[in-house]
Formats: sequence, structure tokens, C-alpha cells
Amino acid sequence: MDISQYIQTLAKDAKNAASIMAEASTEQKNAALNNIAQLLLDNQSDLIRANEQDLANATAKNLDAPLLDRLTLTAKTVQSMADGLRQIATLPDPIGEMSDFAYRPSGIQVGKMRVPLGVVGIIYESRPNVTADAAGLCLKSGNACVLRGGSEAIHSNTAIAKLIYQGLKMAGLPETAVRLVENTDRQGVGAMLQASDLIDVIVPRGGKGLVARIANEARVPVIKHLDGICHTFIDASANIDMAVKICVNAKTSRYGTCNTMETLLVHQNIADKVLPILWTEYQQKGVEIRSCEKSREWLPESIAAVEDDWATEYLAPILAIKVVENIDEAICHINHYGSHHTDAIITENYSHSQKFLRAVDSSSVMINASTRFADGFEYGLGAEIGISTDKIHARGPVGLEGLTSQKWIVFGHGEIRV
Amino acid sequence: MDISQYIQTLAKDAKNAASIMAEASTEQKNAALNNIAQLLLDNQSDLIRANEQDLANATAKNLDAPLLDRLTLTAKTVQSMADGLRQIATLPDPIGEMSDFAYRPSGIQVGKMRVPLGVVGIIYESRPNVTADAAGLCLKSGNACVLRGGSEAIHSNTAIAKLIYQGLKMAGLPETAVRLVENTDRQGVGAMLQASDLIDVIVPRGGKGLVARIANEARVPVIKHLDGICHTFIDASANIDMAVKICVNAKTSRYGTCNTMETLLVHQNIADKVLPILWTEYQQKGVEIRSCEKSREWLPESIAAVEDDWATEYLAPILAIKVVENIDEAICHINHYGSHHTDAIITENYSHSQKFLRAVDSSSVMINASTRFADGFEYGLGAEIGISTDKIHARGPVGLEGLTSQKWIVFGHGEIRV
Repeated sequence: MDISQYIQTLAKDAKNAASIMAEASTEQKNAALNNIAQLLLDNQSDLIRANEQDLANATAKNLDAPLLDRLTLTAKTVQSMADGLRQIATLPDPIGEMSDFAYRPSGIQVGKMRVPLGVVGIIYESRPNVTADAAGLCLKSGNACVLRGGSEAIHSNTAIAKLIYQGLKMAGLPETAVRLVENTDRQGVGAMLQASDLIDVIVPRGGKGLVARIANEARVPVIKHLDGICHTFIDASANIDMAVKICVNAKTSRYGTCNTMETLLVHQNIADKVLPILWTEYQQKGVEIRSCEKSREWLPESIAAVEDDWATEYLAPILAIKVVENIDEAICHINHYGSHHTDAIITENYSHSQKFLRAVDSSSVMINASTRFADGFEYGLGAEIGISTDKIHARGPVGLEGLTSQKWIVFGHGEIRV
Repeated sequence: MDISQYIQTLAKDAKNAASIMAEASTEQKNAALNNIAQLLLDNQSDLIRANEQDLANATAKNLDAPLLDRLTLTAKTVQSMADGLRQIATLPDPIGEMSDFAYRPSGIQVGKMRVPLGVVGIIYESRPNVTADAAGLCLKSGNACVLRGGSEAIHSNTAIAKLIYQGLKMAGLPETAVRLVENTDRQGVGAMLQASDLIDVIVPRGGKGLVARIANEARVPVIKHLDGICHTFIDASANIDMAVKICVNAKTSRYGTCNTMETLLVHQNIADKVLPILWTEYQQKGVEIRSCEKSREWLPESIAAVEDDWATEYLAPILAIKVVENIDEAICHINHYGSHHTDAIITENYSHSQKFLRAVDSSSVMINASTRFADGFEYGLGAEIGISTDKIHARGPVGLEGLTSQKWIVFGHGEIRV
């Protein structure tokens, strides 16, 4: 069987299981989630042994340290996979939920019912915990899934998948509801991306290169997350203490996350008050400042920013700073250079807060809060499969609801259309 | 300027206008809709004159009668375009609507705001009224649009677009918010389908061939409508009078619409009661019956159905009939052969109604009503841009809401993430 046939077979099995998953009771789905959590904990040593094989191969191949770090399974990561699954079990079941009913003049009553998407394809890189997290979210949302993890994590993923199959079976659900791609031939990814008759949506999890390639090749709809070039705009009327506190947090609480601030915009009328304080704060944290010409009046020791800086996701202790004339310039800058991910305004001016909210075209727009809050857990989704920078279907953090759709339902009483 | 550059220019103009449209007030948008409606009526004779040119060209090219029919503008169609726009003006404005607010443990308040998609590309065939309808829906939902109508309707479309530009301008909105593609070189469609940086979604309006080609080539997300192979299942417990009335309506009220029933499934225990009556009804209406072997016991004069009949959208006075053993066989048949458009059950059995509702994987699922109700107007959307047979983003009739997305908004009070 060649790799495309292999993928087709897995996806067909998943598609068949999807109709059973769509009708599975909340109780059964939660039982499966809790079973899998317990099996992960009970078989922790097997998982870590499988993971050691992956780590040995990766070391032999001289893969870099951050990759090895992402690849490593420990007692702690196994525990957190189990906790994650148990938490998903506690979330409300979105499937079957009916809403928006209205009687129409014809006499029919029209409403909507939330339903699964069907088969979700997840394509991810080295982190083996994604195998459990993604399977858990798909399972709870009534979907089947095809999981294609990185070749470097194949032993870990296979060991985790075996327990997922077992947990599904124990709950009376088809083990084919989760299908791990065990042949990690690169062409398998291509086959998934073309399988629009079998896979309903693809969620890539990984670096920008992977996601861009997938989005470009896919014939299946993709829920994608490209970069996070997040801004904070300190308006003229901002509370200075608040502005400083938020801007320090948004930049320095973590450097490698997509919701970290990468560019700070400062209203010219508050620059003299806020920039010297922020300079000191950032100096203490070792953050390199790249600034516009105007802002160097207050940041004389900073590096001059070049055009590229406004469009760069540093994922590092570097911050671009620009002084703007007014809120309109700030909004224009954000909509032009940003990545439509998350942007915040710090202001005490009501009209400006409303204007910013409406005009900034980003998946999350915040007033007086740190961009670091843009996250499924912080938003109360319970868990997230990713953050979408698209506008179609799901925007921003994608939780269970993003893995569902709504169908129309009609309650009639013998009505015909005249 | 070659055709791709031309499309890029139009799409860029639309993208620039989109940010203004996103912030336009309801009042301004409604004024534009009403202006355009009035201009269409005031300039009816110009429109009909332009349309005569198109009709003359089409006749010279020997285009077929149904196409000429769809192409023709009359005083009545102009009136109905104007009425349609005025009706869109009366619909609630979806943009800016905030919902789903909740305080989170961190102190932030998280909710959603409904926002436009940005630039909508509409690709359609001969009907010039789509120019006004689609522009109206995009305008009310705060989007800009690029309209690419068929070459055979170019004079009519250009005349309509001129009035749309004028109506926008009179309302103080950018006339570039609606861009008609005046160069109908076929490669222009390809250029639109590739412009994923400028166009946010493509809505094709036309035959299955056009839609399938667009879905296959597009790099931009597509809200598409393929075929409508709609089923009605008469369950054993159905009220016979109701079943007959609905099945006659679902098949014969119009033959060429996507929500017309194409296959009738009948429970074996009610076949003897319902099929002879339906045979008489359909004979009177001239409907050809293609039936399964089992059903020919009660339909001896019908034609034997072949495998292809179960997967055919006839759009004609032809009906496929199959007798099934039970509701499970009916659901399996629908999910396998149907097009996930609209399917109905006629039943008095509560458990069966619930099972059918949940298990049938279609954009509209109905109990005791005619499939012909699957329509934006009948569902109360006010107007529709199309019916989606996809699950991603929008499913079933797509109205104003389908042309929008939701962004997350966060009201903070200085919160930082710890």
C-alpha cells in the first residue's frame, strides 16, 4: 500500500467513525477522556521508554536543543496530558445544543443545532503531548481525527495513540475515531491536504513555515495560525502606572509566545512621561529597543528601527517602539503592519476606547489589558486547539466550538411552501 | 495593464474601502441602499436599454433560451431589485453587535464583537440582478466587494454598477466599496481566486460546473453551494394525509430549485398505504417515477431505478423512490447518497424525530415540513447570498451573518497575566 492509499484508508476509517462520534452521548465521550487520562498515568513508564527512543534518534541526528526540549516527555508532562484530558471532560458538551428558535409566518419553527465538523486532520511537529490534547478536543466535540505528528516523535506518538485507542474502546466508542499516521513519509501530509472528500478541516500546529506550506497546498479548509505581531498603543490619556505595568507584562512575561507584544505605539503627548520609565524597566529585563526617529528624543540610547522591524515577530527580548501623532495613526499602523492577532489600547478616553475596539481588525482587541491574555484558557474556552488568524469560521483562540458547525433544524406541523 | 494587474487594482481599491465600510454607521449604509434602489427605478429605461444590447449579443451568439430568460431585465425585475435593496435596508445591522460577555478569574471581561469579513468576491453567471442583490448584502454587512458577472451580461451589469457607485457616493461612502470587473477576460476569475491577500472570501453563484471549478482552483476561502439532492423519509408512523401533501409540495412546487425533493424514502410498513396515493398524485403532475425493486410491488408501472438515480439532482419532474426497512436504513441512505443540503422526515414518532434530527448530516434537517422551506427568506434571514453545502464558516442559507465574523474583545482594568 503506498502512502496515499494508506492515508486514504485511515481517513476513510475516521470518516466512518465520525458518524458514530456525532451521536455519542456526553457520558460516553467523557468516559473515554477519563479512561485515556488514567491509562496515560498507569502507563507512564512505557511512554517515557518510547520517548527515550525518539530522544536517542534525535540526538543521533544532532537535532537542536529547543526541539529536544519540545520532544521530551517527563512524569510532569504525562501528568499534564492527563490533567488536560480530565479538564476537557468537565467542559460542557457543545454537540446537540439547540438555539435561535423562531416561528416563521409559514408556521414552521426554525432553529439551529450544533454539530461536529466530521473529520479533523491535525498536522503537528515535535511535541508528543499534542497527540493527547488534540485527540481529546476532537473527541469531546464529536469529531473523528487523523493525527499526523512529526517523524521525530513517532515512538512517543504511537505509544500515546495505543492508549487512546484502548480508552475509546473501553468506553464503547470506535477506536478508529482517532487515527495516528504511523508512516511519517512526507508525502502523507500532501495526501491529507488533498483529501477534501474525507477530511473536513485541517489544523496545523507548528512553526510559520509548516503552517504557510499547509495553507498554500491544502484543498481542505485550514484553521491556521500564522504570526502574532501584537501591539500596545499608549494613548495620551493613559494612566501611566497602568501603561507601564501592562507594557512590561506584555513584552517580558514570556518572549516566545504569539500573544507577546512586539511593537509599542506611544501617543506623542505622553511619550515624555512614559518612555523614560519604560526604558529603565526594559533595560533591567535586557530588552533591546528599536525605535522610530521621533521616539529617540526620549530613547537616545536605543537602536534605530528599520522598516522591517514594524513587520517582525521577534519572539525574543526585542521591542520596536514608535511615537504616533494620534489614535488614527496608531490604528492605521496596526492594521497595516500587524498580523491581525491581538492588539491593545491603554486609555482613559471613552471615545478612543470604542473607536479602537471597532476599527482595529484583529482577532482580539483589548482595552487596558495585557496582550498576553489572548489564550483559550484565559478566555474561558477551557482548552484550545490553536489561535486562528483567519476570519473565516473561527477567529482567535479556537476551543471546542471552533471544531463544530451549526445545522438548521425545522420543526413543522405539515407545512408546505406556497 | 494586464488582466491580473487590473483585478489586483480593483481588489486593492476594495480593500482600502473595506476599512471605511467596517466603521460606516447603519444610517449611512441604509441611506446608500435606499439611494441605489431609487436610482434603479429612476433609471429603469437606461437599464433596459443596456440589457437590450446584452440580449442582442446573446441572440447573435445563439445562446440558449433559459440563459436568455435569466439575462432579461424587465420593469418587474428592476422593481424587484429595488425592493430587495430596500428590504436589506430594513434588516438589523449585524456589525458592531457585542455578545457573550463573561468576567474571567483574572478580572478581565471577555466577549465578542461581530465584524465584516473585509472584501467579498462574488463570481456569477448571467443574472444581472445578482449585481444589485450581492452588492446590497455586502454593503449592509460592512464589507466591500468585487463583483465578477458573466460576459453576456456586461452591459447590464455596468449600468447597474454605475448607479450603485452613485448611491454610495450620495451617502458619503466610498464608491470603491463595490467594484465591478468590467474586463470579463476569463483569466480574471483565476486572478480573483488567487488573491488571498486582498479578497477574504469568494461566493460563487451559478451552476455546479462553475462552482466546482472555483472551489478547486481557489486559494481564497469559498462559501460554496454544490448540488441539492434532498430527501423526504416517510416513517411508519407518519400521518398519511400530511405525508402526501408534503411530498407533493416538495417535489412539484418547483422543479428547478436546489431544495426540491429528488428522492423519496418510504418505510416498508406504510408503503402500501402511501405509495398508491402518491403514484396518482405524481401521475397527474406528470412526474416520472424511478423506483427500487421493493417499491415496485406498489408502483408496478414505474421505471426501475439504477444506482445513479440515488445520487442525481434531477432538477426536473423525475423522482426516485426507495422503500426502506427502518429509520436507520433511511438515515444511512441520506448520509451516503445525499448532498448534505436538506432532508426531512414525516413522522409521529418522537424518538424517531429526535434521532433523524441529530443523525442526518445535512445543512437543514426538517420534521414534518416540505424541503422547499430551505431558503433564506423562509428562515427569516431577510435575504441570502447563497446556500452553503459546506460545514466550515456558514452552513445552509447564508444571510448577512454569513458575511461576518466575530472578533474577541477584552475590557480590562489594568490586568496583567501572571
